[in-house]
Amino acid sequence: MDRYLVISSDCHAGLPPEQYRDYLDPKYRDAFDIALPIQIEETQKAAKKFLVADINAEWRKGRESLLSGAWDHDQRIKVLDGDGIAGEVIYPDGITEMNMPPFGAGLSLPTEDPIVPELQWAGARAHNRWLAEFCQMAPDRRAGVALCPMLWDVDEAVKEVEWAKENGLRGILIPTRWGKLDAYHHPKYDPVWAACQDLGMVVNLHSGAAPMEDYGEGQGMMGIYISEVCWFAYRPLTFMLWGGVFERYPKLRLMVTEGTSVWVPEYLQLLDFRYADTPYSAKLGDYTGHLSMKPSEYFSRNVLVGASCMPRREAEMRYEIGIENLAWGSDYPHPEGTWPNTAPQMRETFMDLPEDEITRMLGGNLADFYGFDASKLGRIAAEVGPLKSDFRS
Amino acid sequence: MDRYLVISSDCHAGLPPEQYRDYLDPKYRDAFDIALPIQIEETQKAAKKFLVADINAEWRKGRESLLSGAWDHDQRIKVLDGDGIAGEVIYPDGITEMNMPPFGAGLSLPTEDPIVPELQWAGARAHNRWLAEFCQMAPDRRAGVALCPMLWDVDEAVKEVEWAKENGLRGILIPTRWGKLDAYHHPKYDPVWAACQDLGMVVNLHSGAAPMEDYGEGQGMMGIYISEVCWFAYRPLTFMLWGGVFERYPKLRLMVTEGTSVWVPEYLQLLDFRYADTPYSAKLGDYTGHLSMKPSEYFSRNVLVGASCMPRREAEMRYEIGIENLAWGSDYPHPEGTWPNTAPQMRETFMDLPEDEITRMLGGNLADFYGFDASKLGRIAAEVGPLKSDFRS
Repeated sequence: MDRYLVISSDCHAGLPPEQYRDYLDPKYRDAFDIALPIQIEETQKAAKKFLVADINAEWRKGRESLLSGAWDHDQRIKVLDGDGIAGEVIYPDGITEMNMPPFGAGLSLPTEDPIVPELQWAGARAHNRWLAEFCQMAPDRRAGVALCPMLWDVDEAVKEVEWAKENGLRGILIPTRWGKLDAYHHPKYDPVWAACQDLGMVVNLHSGAAPMEDYGEGQGMMGIYISEVCWFAYRPLTFMLWGGVFERYPKLRLMVTEGTSVWVPEYLQLLDFRYADTPYSAKLGDYTGHLSMKPSEYFSRNVLVGASCMPRREAEMRYEIGIENLAWGSDYPHPEGTWPNTAPQMRETFMDLPEDEITRMLGGNLADFYGFDASKLGRIAAEVGPLKSDFRS
Repeated sequence: MDRYLVISSDCHAGLPPEQYRDYLDPKYRDAFDIALPIQIEETQKAAKKFLVADINAEWRKGRESLLSGAWDHDQRIKVLDGDGIAGEVIYPDGITEMNMPPFGAGLSLPTEDPIVPELQWAGARAHNRWLAEFCQMAPDRRAGVALCPMLWDVDEAVKEVEWAKENGLRGILIPTRWGKLDAYHHPKYDPVWAACQDLGMVVNLHSGAAPMEDYGEGQGMMGIYISEVCWFAYRPLTFMLWGGVFERYPKLRLMVTEGTSVWVPEYLQLLDFRYADTPYSAKLGDYTGHLSMKPSEYFSRNVLVGASCMPRREAEMRYEIGIENLAWGSDYPHPEGTWPNTAPQMRETFMDLPEDEITRMLGGNLADFYGFDASKLGRIAAEVGPLKSDFRS
């Protein structure tokens, strides 16, 4: 094949907020009607805080119909084809297109007041129902990730994993922050990991949430947020690694998305250093006996990192990160994403690297991880994928 | 000179807990008598959690009198001379020698219940009074760091900076975590930074505190703690950098101790990347206008990293970290410290590196940062310092 098979590790989709009503369990529709205007107001406030209105209005100008690919099948196919992308992993959307699921069941799945667990579950399920339909419109191309606020209730979470599997979704998105609830090393979550392992569902962490309460409103808050947000995205990995989750569930797959990948080498060095028998750790007694491998070995086997809008530097670090642990992503339809400049950005990142390595990072790793049908997807890539010759100077 | 002038960036000292009574403002002595047995019990509990009793009892055997250098002048001189160390930066001590200051005024300066601000201040001042005396017994060799729980009260903090300066101490230790109080980018703390800059007092962060409430009690908690604790040690730096503290106080000096130094290169890369005009940051508007330099430039000018028990790898990373931003430390009297194996560990770390670079990392950087009198200290180093020839293979 003279073209690359490209899969994006990081795309977003969600309905305009009022349209979620039909996907909601009827008993929550009264609550929905009350909550909707509040949600829209809150989303606008957040958008104002995180996105300077003028810049984004400017960016969106003339792109409105293509941006409606955030929920519209035809527009989305047009955008992805134009970007050379055959397949995609789909997360919920957020403040940019104002299309968040109801009741705080957004990308961050917060656990703090005023979130009501039962309602957040209802909102998550409304989104999952719609997403399952949306993915069925192009089942070979779309790996949908179900919202799963698992911290509230393990039994509900297991049910949702099963429902998502039955309905063609490929993984679950779990909160990256746990507030006062138990963190991810707690053995109570084992049934969720077991279900995901048994059903081949990928567990997903996506960046975005961070302790905004620490940042205040003043000068510097945005710089602090964007400096810390990646750490908070992969923080659960630290808990899962040391908690022995990948020891007990050796086939569990964990995806960490849009947290960059530059942290990986130093992070694994540190954890391996801590794991080894050093003077530092000697005084702390045996805290590694439940782990048969080094942290970096679990990482290598169980984890994939979604490098959204991957800059050249991350491609240059591919051996340190792990050539099989790194996956490019476009982050459509977000303004910080590669679209509508995907082709030149992709070339800048991968130019003159070995073909088999580009193949892995642009799509091969994701195909394996999420179970895309590479032959079916290959037929699409043969038409829309970027030419391999474009990556040779 | 045929010997290196060695200064340790990380040593600890503190009185056996009952002896702090005499240094406490008399009006707090009744409270002290009530709190002392509780404190001892709590310290023992913490020691049990963090230090496996058997391992440490074994380690201490036969070293009791030298370990009493944690508060005893003569023993301390003996230990430091034996280690080849001419000068030292002195932080409060902790659970190893059971010699924490009263009322929660320990290394971590926690802000959570059941801490009472007024009492924590009183405990901090008791320690500072003793420390000032202790440093006066060897004023050329000892740079004492005053406890300063500045988050409670800016006016009190400024007073303490002034008192510490007048009494020969060289810097202040501030909490690395702020709980529900304002974080370090808040402009309300400017008077503290101003006082430190004007009086040449070094602001110090020391690792140890971490969100234990997240870690629970179970398997994995210790691995998670030692993987995250360094991040929490330098987290305030992120807030100070983006908050513009080093823009407004260009001569302020910040020391980050015992948090390793391996994080520095990737951390600065990330912050500089965020600072630069990228598609990622464009949508967020202008959040760098108040900063005239890149984060790495402030770091280079204003920050020193105390690399306790520095392994060879950190010495190999010295150019990426900054040859003038890195300072070796022994962590005496802690079991994870280099003592009593300082000489061989030091040789392993620095063997065959250029002499002028070893000079900087072993003591030169610290002499400049804390204002040690290098000529007076040089006379001590001429007697006890490690031979330069020992660092050539």
